[in-house]
Amino acid sequence: MEKITSNQNRQVKAWTKLKTKHGRQKAGQYLIEGWHLVSEAINYDQPIVTIITTEKRLASDGAAFKDRFDYVVVTDEVANHIADTKTTQGIFAVLSIIPTNQVAANFASGGWLLLDQIQDPGNIGTMVRTADAMGLSGVVFGTGTASQYAPKVSRSMQGSQFHIQIAEADLSEWINEYHEQGYPVYGTELNPDAVALDEVPAQANFALVMGNEGNGMQASLLALTDANLFIPMKGNAESLNVAIAAALVMFHLQK
Amino acid sequence: MEKITSNQNRQVKAWTKLKTKHGRQKAGQYLIEGWHLVSEAINYDQPIVTIITTEKRLASDGAAFKDRFDYVVVTDEVANHIADTKTTQGIFAVLSIIPTNQVAANFASGGWLLLDQIQDPGNIGTMVRTADAMGLSGVVFGTGTASQYAPKVSRSMQGSQFHIQIAEADLSEWINEYHEQGYPVYGTELNPDAVALDEVPAQANFALVMGNEGNGMQASLLALTDANLFIPMKGNAESLNVAIAAALVMFHLQK
Repeated sequence: MEKITSNQNRQVKAWTKLKTKHGRQKAGQYLIEGWHLVSEAINYDQPIVTIITTEKRLASDGAAFKDRFDYVVVTDEVANHIADTKTTQGIFAVLSIIPTNQVAANFASGGWLLLDQIQDPGNIGTMVRTADAMGLSGVVFGTGTASQYAPKVSRSMQGSQFHIQIAEADLSEWINEYHEQGYPVYGTELNPDAVALDEVPAQANFALVMGNEGNGMQASLLALTDANLFIPMKGNAESLNVAIAAALVMFHLQK
Repeated sequence: MEKITSNQNRQVKAWTKLKTKHGRQKAGQYLIEGWHLVSEAINYDQPIVTIITTEKRLASDGAAFKDRFDYVVVTDEVANHIADTKTTQGIFAVLSIIPTNQVAANFASGGWLLLDQIQDPGNIGTMVRTADAMGLSGVVFGTGTASQYAPKVSRSMQGSQFHIQIAEADLSEWINEYHEQGYPVYGTELNPDAVALDEVPAQANFALVMGNEGNGMQASLLALTDANLFIPMKGNAESLNVAIAAALVMFHLQK
């Protein structure tokens, strides 16, 4: 069994380049880390190119992948070098990036969450997980939102990115397509024309746009929504985290 | 104006000790960091002992505190030494710890969120902020939950800890007291006897227990609840983050 022992190895160098946007675009691949995420990628038929594993991890979990996928064994030192986490589990997979137009083609049905310039990987991950839990069709990462393939974002989605559809696109195009289908598009900007969440019925087809943590939605997108929803609460609404607000609206709309 | 320039200064040493549990207990004080949190502490009449500031921060925000509170000026180097963040804003406050029995005395009314062995500071912060947004009376940090005074926890609550009541206690005592008042106590453990959230009415007085991220609620507490609620959803419920689940239940109960 071949084992890679040097951080200077050509393959190791190629893998570490996948941590950057430029490297991912050039290779058409990205890297995921951790056994939960790798096993979810296996279970949900993701386009796995190679699995990278330490000997220890091969012994504990190799049965799930060694007869089905190409895999490479690396030392703990090499695993730490590739890792984006402080304490790596010693298991990674290189996946092919699916061109986003393949995702976008069949979009316009069901509930979709549209992320407008969301930056925090934790918030993105929580929103994608919640969309998965609520049975939405998918999530669109709008221009200016952190990349779905960035290591922290990919990790924080905890496999939900393989359960539902994920697209990257200009949100105005999606909003226009939704309107052409006759489906409503909701924003969540507090303004004088905002509509209380409970005045809107549950529905099968909708798009919900969530705006940037600090600045809210872009004005140009806000102008395209059918209604801006506010969440009627007793307390200090300023305190609501964007992922919590998204969850409350998705839960209401999917009922 | 006196200015502290050395990390070896006696006061600096005392402040850095407040980053540990032992240090906080010994001093009966804790440290908060960042202008948003310090200004919230000022606005909500928290027991501020001293404000620690860099010259730059004194120039920009000193008007809000320099005539009302003791303050000490430190160099940027000392500020970085005290800080728990990578990029400090150069403003801190030392606060007195209020004995928890003063908080517990007037607890038994309104909605309360009870945290059972919750560990992640981000989850705790989001839940406290949501409880604030929903108009709950307060949050009880049960035994085994991260400390409200730990730097990461205190920061992630973003000032909501000063808007609502915060207690630290044995949760079984709180549950028993709630029962004595005739108010319901809800858990959120998925089990065969769980009740769908929408079968429970909104109400003014309730306690809601949220369990540990990995292990759920302690069995001994679960046995004390009146009902365990589940959140009826279309998708993959396993994906729901604890802070999202708490928000959905609080929103429903506070309507």
